[in-house]
Amino acid sequence: MKKPLIIINFKTYVEGCGDMAVSISKSAEKIGEGAGAEMIVCPQAADIYRVASAVSIPVFAQHVDPISGGSSTGHILPLSVKEAGGSGTLVNHSERRLKLADIDAVINEAKKVGLTTVICSNNIATTSAASALSPDYVAVEPPELIGSGIPVSKANPDIVRGSMGAVKNINPDVKVLCGAGISRGDDVKAALELGAEGVLLASGVVKAKDPAAALLDLVGFL
Amino acid sequence: MKKPLIIINFKTYVEGCGDMAVSISKSAEKIGEGAGAEMIVCPQAADIYRVASAVSIPVFAQHVDPISGGSSTGHILPLSVKEAGGSGTLVNHSERRLKLADIDAVINEAKKVGLTTVICSNNIATTSAASALSPDYVAVEPPELIGSGIPVSKANPDIVRGSMGAVKNINPDVKVLCGAGISRGDDVKAALELGAEGVLLASGVVKAKDPAAALLDLVGFL
Amino acid sequence: MKKPLIIINFKTYVEGCGDMAVSISKSAEKIGEGAGAEMIVCPQAADIYRVASAVSIPVFAQHVDPISGGSSTGHILPLSVKEAGGSGTLVNHSERRLKLADIDAVINEAKKVGLTTVICSNNIATTSAASALSPDYVAVEPPELIGSGIPVSKANPDIVRGSMGAVKNINPDVKVLCGAGISRGDDVKAALELGAEGVLLASGVVKAKDPAAALLDLVGFL
Amino acid sequence: MKKPLIIINFKTYVEGCGDMAVSISKSAEKIGEGAGAEMIVCPQAADIYRVASAVSIPVFAQHVDPISGGSSTGHILPLSVKEAGGSGTLVNHSERRLKLADIDAVINEAKKVGLTTVICSNNIATTSAASALSPDYVAVEPPELIGSGIPVSKANPDIVRGSMGAVKNINPDVKVLCGAGISRGDDVKAALELGAEGVLLASGVVKAKDPAAALLDLVGFL
Repeated sequence: MKKPLIIINFKTYVEGCGDMAVSISKSAEKIGEGAGAEMIVCPQAADIYRVASAVSIPVFAQHVDPISGGSSTGHILPLSVKEAGGSGTLVNHSERRLKLADIDAVINEAKKVGLTTVICSNNIATTSAASALSPDYVAVEPPELIGSGIPVSKANPDIVRGSMGAVKNINPDVKVLCGAGISRGDDVKAALELGAEGVLLASGVVKAKDPAAALLDLVGFL
Repeated sequence: MKKPLIIINFKTYVEGCGDMAVSISKSAEKIGEGAGAEMIVCPQAADIYRVASAVSIPVFAQHVDPISGGSSTGHILPLSVKEAGGSGTLVNHSERRLKLADIDAVINEAKKVGLTTVICSNNIATTSAASALSPDYVAVEPPELIGSGIPVSKANPDIVRGSMGAVKNINPDVKVLCGAGISRGDDVKAALELGAEGVLLASGVVKAKDPAAALLDLVGFL
Repeated sequence: MKKPLIIINFKTYVEGCGDMAVSISKSAEKIGEGAGAEMIVCPQAADIYRVASAVSIPVFAQHVDPISGGSSTGHILPLSVKEAGGSGTLVNHSERRLKLADIDAVINEAKKVGLTTVICSNNIATTSAASALSPDYVAVEPPELIGSGIPVSKANPDIVRGSMGAVKNINPDVKVLCGAGISRGDDVKAALELGAEGVLLASGVVKAKDPAAALLDLVGFL
Repeated sequence: MKKPLIIINFKTYVEGCGDMAVSISKSAEKIGEGAGAEMIVCPQAADIYRVASAVSIPVFAQHVDPISGGSSTGHILPLSVKEAGGSGTLVNHSERRLKLADIDAVINEAKKVGLTTVICSNNIATTSAASALSPDYVAVEPPELIGSGIPVSKANPDIVRGSMGAVKNINPDVKVLCGAGISRGDDVKAALELGAEGVLLASGVVKAKDPAAALLDLVGFL
């Protein structure tokens, strides 16, 4: 079985803010290395520098704006993520949906400054559309399963297979992840068996009583 | 003459990002102390931790979202700013306007976590409305003068006087700043003479060829 | 007891769309005249012309954009509402919140073309802020009671009294309405007894099995 | 030469509001019939009923929201457009950009109520993405040419050809229009020669001193 990619989104959880962002990221680094899984952490913008200074695994932003500098007070400049030590970004997460033209502009701007991009999508049609914009990854997440504890890779394997088929037709260079409801190693395994490169998850780790134990469980099948 | 408050907004200027955010902030700290002016810097979200670790003057966010935690991927949690070393935030900047109900919610959330608030407004009517929401400061900035190099304190003293009168009637605890087109010490002096507590500026310092020289000029009249 | 103002918001209810918008508006006209209540209907934008051609009571838009013409495809020009026979508009409804600066701009633009304005607000602080912008009316509607069937005028009389006190201090020319959970004549009566000029309601009439009967009930206490 | 499709967007131009919307639409109907061109008019929401009652050519909305009814005060219900006599809608116009997931939802909702859809896009990548969502039409409009008077079909034929190629690969059932800077018959002819089904234009007709003369010019080459 190939090395899975596991992206952990810290959202704006209080449990994954500040010191705790650093602590969970260190656990992810250690456990990923031990198990042979590629871990990526997505802390809040204000925590990127602190986390990236503390770990050597990739640190992604949760969102960047389609801007290259100038007068955009209060927005997230892709370059600022790069300068803070980040190496990629989620784009169009279900809690931070973007306009179509802005997704395209973000992908272009992220490429210019050297950030890897993961466009989140909600169904096969929007996954297809997202792949036409040439991100590095698309991550399909059915909104009804986000935060549900019901893993997409088991509850709706057809959306994962359908997304993979659609992406292959439109832009085979784009890699496919899946997310929503993922919290156990079995869920990750099911995702890989469907052909996904890996998973995107959040509460299953960040809001776990013991995030390190949750991370260990995620890679236990390897 | 009382000690003026000078808030420097780094916007998403490339010239005020990363290392340069730290460098300008150190200049602001040193020059403010020397001249007896209170300097506050507003770097980008990803730079707050780095800047706050390097200087002891207040570091403000440019924007925070009206949230207290949870599932708000890609948004700015007020607590994350506090945890990163920030002590306040701009609210409703002309480049990041908020819904009225969200301004109110941000003010309440910022108070809970201990962040000072500065609501930006664009005319006397919206300054009045903003003051009814009980922020620490309102900063009136006529949009047509932002980035113009024409200082509001000289070009439109009536908007500053009118804002001060309106705020006094509605909520006399709220302090009034002014901004837009400020770049020289004379502009700051004019603002103080109108009764403002200080000024909000951006390009005049951050995009100056020599930000330290620009900062020295700003406090030269003291 | 003074003549109450009753504003009926058709939202995007299928039950209040097209022919049914005309039918409910005719009932409102007839029942309001009979009982000595001032009825105002707020159909969807596409129904304003049809409704305004069929009744002589005021027809308000549910929303207009802060524009005076030009290149704003897909937005609602205040003048277009006036030309279609409308005479006013809701502003900043809880389902269509606006930025503070845009509320101010809408009020100014609506005045220019002769539309009456009703700013909706969600608590005493935002009602105060709204009144500083000099609309004709503010309508305070606690979001937690909207669509609840629990009338604000009975469940939270303090928010109505507090709003009236705040508005009187800031801008006594502004009249105060209340809304959320209103569906019976008793609720309207309670609102008037608290000093409100009238009420804003939606589902209580538009989604009633018999809208005419619901309207009759609303004015039954007169 | 095949019968071209000419879509006229009235934007929020004062010159295309109310009575004038009806007048321009009648001219479009008459001139289109005479020349053998299919004309479609897109008046403001408040004018759809009035225009659709006056002409028999298709009347499209400029925008609809991704909703099927319920509590969405101030939004545009697709059904309300249909009930007012409309038969289609623009989607994601450059002045009313939508989130990717909302474009998908609008397409689905419009199909349910029987509205034809035209997704506007700004470059080849977003045209490709739009076609993956299966609208009836995509209309590529480079933003820098909108309102410029420089016709896309002459200034940037590659974007039209590239869009057509991309759409053919992804979803050959989707028809391609182009827009931006179109104002003369020559521009329409050039668009058809590139393989487009027709054009989308606005100011060239609606803000013309004599809209009927402008319409005649558009079809003069037929």
